[in-house]
Amino acid sequence: MKDERWKHGGDIYTNGVFKGKDLVDFSSNINPLGVSDLLKDSIEELFNEVVRYPDYQYRELKASISEYLLRYENVNVSSEEMILGNGASEILDLSLSKIRKLGIVVPSFVEYEDFALKYNAEIEYINLTGDFQYDYSEILSSLNKLDGIILGNPNNPTGNIIDKEKFKDILDFAEKENKKIIVDEAFVEFSREGSSLVDKIASYKCLVIIRAFTKFFGMPGARLGYGITSDKQFIEELKKYQLPWNINSFAEIALEKSYKDENYISKSREWIANEIGYMKNEFAKLSIFKKVYDTNCNFILCKLDTMKTSELYEILLNKGILIRNCSNFKKLDDTYVRFAIKSRNLNKLLIDNLKNL
Amino acid sequence: MKDERWKHGGDIYTNGVFKGKDLVDFSSNINPLGVSDLLKDSIEELFNEVVRYPDYQYRELKASISEYLLRYENVNVSSEEMILGNGASEILDLSLSKIRKLGIVVPSFVEYEDFALKYNAEIEYINLTGDFQYDYSEILSSLNKLDGIILGNPNNPTGNIIDKEKFKDILDFAEKENKKIIVDEAFVEFSREGSSLVDKIASYKCLVIIRAFTKFFGMPGARLGYGITSDKQFIEELKKYQLPWNINSFAEIALEKSYKDENYISKSREWIANEIGYMKNEFAKLSIFKKVYDTNCNFILCKLDTMKTSELYEILLNKGILIRNCSNFKKLDDTYVRFAIKSRNLNKLLIDNLKNL
Repeated sequence: MKDERWKHGGDIYTNGVFKGKDLVDFSSNINPLGVSDLLKDSIEELFNEVVRYPDYQYRELKASISEYLLRYENVNVSSEEMILGNGASEILDLSLSKIRKLGIVVPSFVEYEDFALKYNAEIEYINLTGDFQYDYSEILSSLNKLDGIILGNPNNPTGNIIDKEKFKDILDFAEKENKKIIVDEAFVEFSREGSSLVDKIASYKCLVIIRAFTKFFGMPGARLGYGITSDKQFIEELKKYQLPWNINSFAEIALEKSYKDENYISKSREWIANEIGYMKNEFAKLSIFKKVYDTNCNFILCKLDTMKTSELYEILLNKGILIRNCSNFKKLDDTYVRFAIKSRNLNKLLIDNLKNL
Repeated sequence: MKDERWKHGGDIYTNGVFKGKDLVDFSSNINPLGVSDLLKDSIEELFNEVVRYPDYQYRELKASISEYLLRYENVNVSSEEMILGNGASEILDLSLSKIRKLGIVVPSFVEYEDFALKYNAEIEYINLTGDFQYDYSEILSSLNKLDGIILGNPNNPTGNIIDKEKFKDILDFAEKENKKIIVDEAFVEFSREGSSLVDKIASYKCLVIIRAFTKFFGMPGARLGYGITSDKQFIEELKKYQLPWNINSFAEIALEKSYKDENYISKSREWIANEIGYMKNEFAKLSIFKKVYDTNCNFILCKLDTMKTSELYEILLNKGILIRNCSNFKKLDDTYVRFAIKSRNLNKLLIDNLKNL
């Protein structure tokens, strides 16, 4: 990864190097509730664990993930159907390394393209509809000449999710024709219950689901994600390229504690339900937006009316607020902006600043 | 990394899965002093940091490493001369991926070969002397037909270090002929002061030094290592293959605090000086060893007289002690055993058990 190519949200460091940490960051889509109390209360365990090498098979960690998926998705996933990564990025990177002709639905997470290009994949871009929803017939017809596709559920930065009914033909075709369907569910816990495709893995070996631990549980610095598929051979193939002990002890403990914190999970869901409604309402009243796109997630994509996003970026940065300029997403330009949803106080601060423009 | 190929020390999990954590582990070469107090006292900072994405350029982290190298090695290393890895393994893997014809001095760390084979390198094995010291003229003559070599300083599992005087011809030749000299200094802080080759990087662009943070500072679970070279182009080339945010927040804070903990560093040096002497003395009295090899490190390689290491392994495992059978190191067999040095109490426990055989 070259420094010059940097183009994500969350870079609170460059805008006034080191001092930037005081910025209110609406550019990265992280749960603002902070760290689970169960984790905070068990920090002593970390100091017992970190002095040892982790279990190179990560057996307890995988058991915790299985238990979580059973409780919240009602799906049985065995440890052989799971591959762990130093961030979901590692699994994205490994999965995409195996696909020669890749379809990327755009606009979407910029890394998909970067990873695929690193492995010299041929890329075909498949557009979302005008309202930034999935165009299922377009995806199905494109799949014919591809080895696989990647798509977000929900998609970033647009917040749309996959309609399972409409997606069935795509899965059936992929399964029959041996194509890979890679679904990035890094943000799926921010969507309404039942959004995940993880209940399809038993029926479709073609399906690879990639999950992030750190976004919903508010710990991007912990670095932990995983892939799920019933194609065990695919997992074995990816594992060959992994380093030993790729998951750090802190991430291990963080997941084990957080995944059990039912209070944190229910509080987070309540927060999303409240704040998404509040933000949509408030955004609708603002004249600076030409369009506020529908979202099933913890971020909202908007199109500005007359102002450029780069102008808005500078104005808000001067007020200590960092937003995501979407001009480096394919098919978007300097009139699109993405806002993560934060706590009510901070959301109100943003709204007030937008009102006073 | 395939599970079946597992062959490191430190696997306290498989021997009685999960319950194995109570084993006394002489198989992994980790500082037994535990975690730095400075780090323990600043755990609250972790919870402030982990809720954000790390700085993708890791500027503060690199500054801490520079400061440490200046204080303890009296060498100036800029951030452009540094590459960070999720464990030293990541940097080893990346560095070896660039060498087509690789010389590996053996016996040495088994991963060197695994990484090189992953990239289909041609491997030439260069033997240590009968006393397991570097054979400098052999290395120099081999280098002629190679693109690079890797060697440990100190070497694992033998504990020998590089003689800088005798190594000069090798560095001169490599610099002139554009060969890479990769030096794995994962254990260098356990050796006597001045052992590191880091003072040579300004003069030799061919030299790549790989350091681990986590061994000397007792935190293998934290996952953090780095490479140092004045060949900035080489660093840029390796960085292309790295994932964003490869270092987790806990490792960042752990290094920043531990590298400043002068008390921990001086206590660790005192421990090594005392315990190495004690262990060598006690081992010399034991008749089960045919040979106890000289070491400049925190582990000792021994050759058993009549017993097989696999027998000794089983006997000690039944007493709750895990040792490193060295039979999977090239050029070693089931009569070699490596012991890490631990605290006096545990070292005494080992000696008592060996005496009572």
